[in-house]
Amino acid sequence: MARYRITVEYDGGPFCGWQMQDNGPSVQGALVDALGKLSGEKAQVFGAGRTDAGVHALGQVAHFDLSTIWRVDKIRDGLNFHLKPAPVAVLDAAEVDDEFHARFSATGRHYIYKIISRRPPLTVEKGRAWRVSKPLDADVMHEAGQALVGTHDFTTFRSAHCQAKSPYKSIDVVRVSQEGDAILIRVSARSFLHNQVRSIAGSLKMVGEGLWSKDDLQSALEAADRSRCGPVAPPDGLYLTKVDYPLRAVGADRTPVQS
Amino acid sequence: MARYRITVEYDGGPFCGWQMQDNGPSVQGALVDALGKLSGEKAQVFGAGRTDAGVHALGQVAHFDLSTIWRVDKIRDGLNFHLKPAPVAVLDAAEVDDEFHARFSATGRHYIYKIISRRPPLTVEKGRAWRVSKPLDADVMHEAGQALVGTHDFTTFRSAHCQAKSPYKSIDVVRVSQEGDAILIRVSARSFLHNQVRSIAGSLKMVGEGLWSKDDLQSALEAADRSRCGPVAPPDGLYLTKVDYPLRAVGADRTPVQS
Repeated sequence: MARYRITVEYDGGPFCGWQMQDNGPSVQGALVDALGKLSGEKAQVFGAGRTDAGVHALGQVAHFDLSTIWRVDKIRDGLNFHLKPAPVAVLDAAEVDDEFHARFSATGRHYIYKIISRRPPLTVEKGRAWRVSKPLDADVMHEAGQALVGTHDFTTFRSAHCQAKSPYKSIDVVRVSQEGDAILIRVSARSFLHNQVRSIAGSLKMVGEGLWSKDDLQSALEAADRSRCGPVAPPDGLYLTKVDYPLRAVGADRTPVQS
Repeated sequence: MARYRITVEYDGGPFCGWQMQDNGPSVQGALVDALGKLSGEKAQVFGAGRTDAGVHALGQVAHFDLSTIWRVDKIRDGLNFHLKPAPVAVLDAAEVDDEFHARFSATGRHYIYKIISRRPPLTVEKGRAWRVSKPLDADVMHEAGQALVGTHDFTTFRSAHCQAKSPYKSIDVVRVSQEGDAILIRVSARSFLHNQVRSIAGSLKMVGEGLWSKDDLQSALEAADRSRCGPVAPPDGLYLTKVDYPLRAVGADRTPVQS
């Protein structure tokens, strides 16, 4: 038995989300199927973040166990071959020790939310960003967003369907920057509540448009009241970009011994 | 009668190209239809560049005449409304004087060709870049590409179907740069031969992989022989980014007098 960690990129558009569900194709399901075709084994695949329908990943991390030892380049290339034509790609594969768990070993998750501020609809970026027709002030958004950094009760910025026991989370970074006609909101934390980043992005957009002041965002947070949240931003603009692990949990690649 | 200039962005993926054809939907056709729905007029739409099937535009320019005067914001928003759900957007509209011609007044055309150099297939960038699995050396590509700058017989880098009378063109800029995992090839000229940028991109890729030397590219150009061209790069990575016009041909927006 060997455990493998893969880094996965996907266009979330055609999927009902990361997690296997009855109502449509999932990224997890696509990986389980590809792994079955490649290895002949029906392995479970565990992901670091259960991204919602339409949410993208540039650096999702997952792990699974196989009963035989594989060369990691065969895992990467073989999964990519069997994943076609689904827009899911394995960027990297490594053998890890069996204490590694994609979800529970993770110490940090990094998301980017992309807004394009313009009046005409999106074409090349359709499904890959949130178009907001009013001009947004990225500097003001950044400044207001600093109120969210630290440990808070994030009830306001949490889906009514969130299953986490506690509404308390610690946000490490909120960084808003203008890059060309795009506004990028970077948010990092050990872990997130359901819809937390999209709730934050939607509320920061209210600040950027001038409809909310910096104090309005702060008091929405302090109210710990879901009804005080701004509009939840659509999934199109959200990307899981990176997952962090402590060095000891990552596991060095072992020498491939068999293909 | 008034003439309007529009700046158009599109995802070329679903189209058989800019130009109206019998074999599928075209960008030009989508604009003619939308203009008909908006104005009730069957106007011809002239574009600056006849992009091929699958080629994108971030700044295509087109013009058309209408028998009545329109507010330019109504033209932009009305066309965008009627273009839905086609991935075509009018970024800007202006009234111009009747000597302006999107194609014949153009003094410069700017393209970017985007290559992503990696082994795994593309997901979020699928259809929007050329994936090349071997590593490419952007500096060497840039250096070699300078042989193409200036006025040359571009027979080598021209489709067999090209209808231009002369194979001579003057390239003003070839700039190759690495930006993250993307290699961007910027090419600017007053005008281009059919498939010229994609032929250049495919040949520069040969240089970047180390299969061609700088001298090989130079001698391919000097041979003026189509069979000496590298593989023609796929349309997915090509973007028409900007079209230049002399100031006098652009025409200041007139005051809107009627909506």
